[in-house]
Amino acid sequence: MTWTDPDCPVARAADLIGDRWSLLVIRDAMDGAGSFTDFQQRTGIARNILSDRLRKLVTGGVLVQVDAPSGRRKRYALSDAGRDLFAVIVTLRQWGERHAFGDDEPHSTLLDREGRPLPRVLPVDVDGAAVGVDSTRVQKV
Amino acid sequence: MTWTDPDCPVARAADLIGDRWSLLVIRDAMDGAGSFTDFQQRTGIARNILSDRLRKLVTGGVLVQVDAPSGRRKRYALSDAGRDLFAVIVTLRQWGERHAFGDDEPHSTLLDREGRPLPRVLPVDVDGAAVGVDSTRVQKV
Repeated sequence: MTWTDPDCPVARAADLIGDRWSLLVIRDAMDGAGSFTDFQQRTGIARNILSDRLRKLVTGGVLVQVDAPSGRRKRYALSDAGRDLFAVIVTLRQWGERHAFGDDEPHSTLLDREGRPLPRVLPVDVDGAAVGVDSTRVQKV
Repeated sequence: MTWTDPDCPVARAADLIGDRWSLLVIRDAMDGAGSFTDFQQRTGIARNILSDRLRKLVTGGVLVQVDAPSGRRKRYALSDAGRDLFAVIVTLRQWGERHAFGDDEPHSTLLDREGRPLPRVLPVDVDGAAVGVDSTRVQKV
């Protein structure tokens, strides 16, 4: 892997999954999609692009290939690293809910086991106080 | 805007910012970059691609154009929606730190005002219990 900006974790993450179709494949894998056809039908993505993204996500360690029960077709599942993208997908979702929908536009909702919407994910410091762009800084290597 | 999957907030967010270069521009804007040259030098991105991404981020409401003091060159700043991407960038960073670096590879660090690293951002339910892929589900529109 050739990294765009090797010292920066944001950049390495963006190199691995910073792509619209990759993000939707990860979203759908979290929602139970596993076969090429599953991903193709849920995203409407072109087959050649889907093949490329599945290959990159396997190479990048986000997805793993698993044998299908029938042995006929490849299936894909999230690796531990892929499952750990949950916080990324949730924060993307919550940002989208706040900023990409009009008040009158319906959207899907992420619910916990009891059917309750997830509260907003907020970065905090070690004391539990909310932090943001103005209260944090990046220390270079 | 033509949305890939109009009912899904993850998909709308991915349509607006789900692109490697857009994510790095947002990262750098959070870190103080404001001019075309700032973004160009920090990312090493090709000028035509940078122009395209800046335009899309302005159109998408993530960046706003601001007048430079000299009035000579355009500058860019995060909108409120753009600043609200902090949680997305932090979760990407933290995932990258965990999964895209070897033990011996140094990386930049995000610090609070007191110089303390930010704790891990973890989605929780309304009771404060950690949730993940297996304990949540998407309710369609």
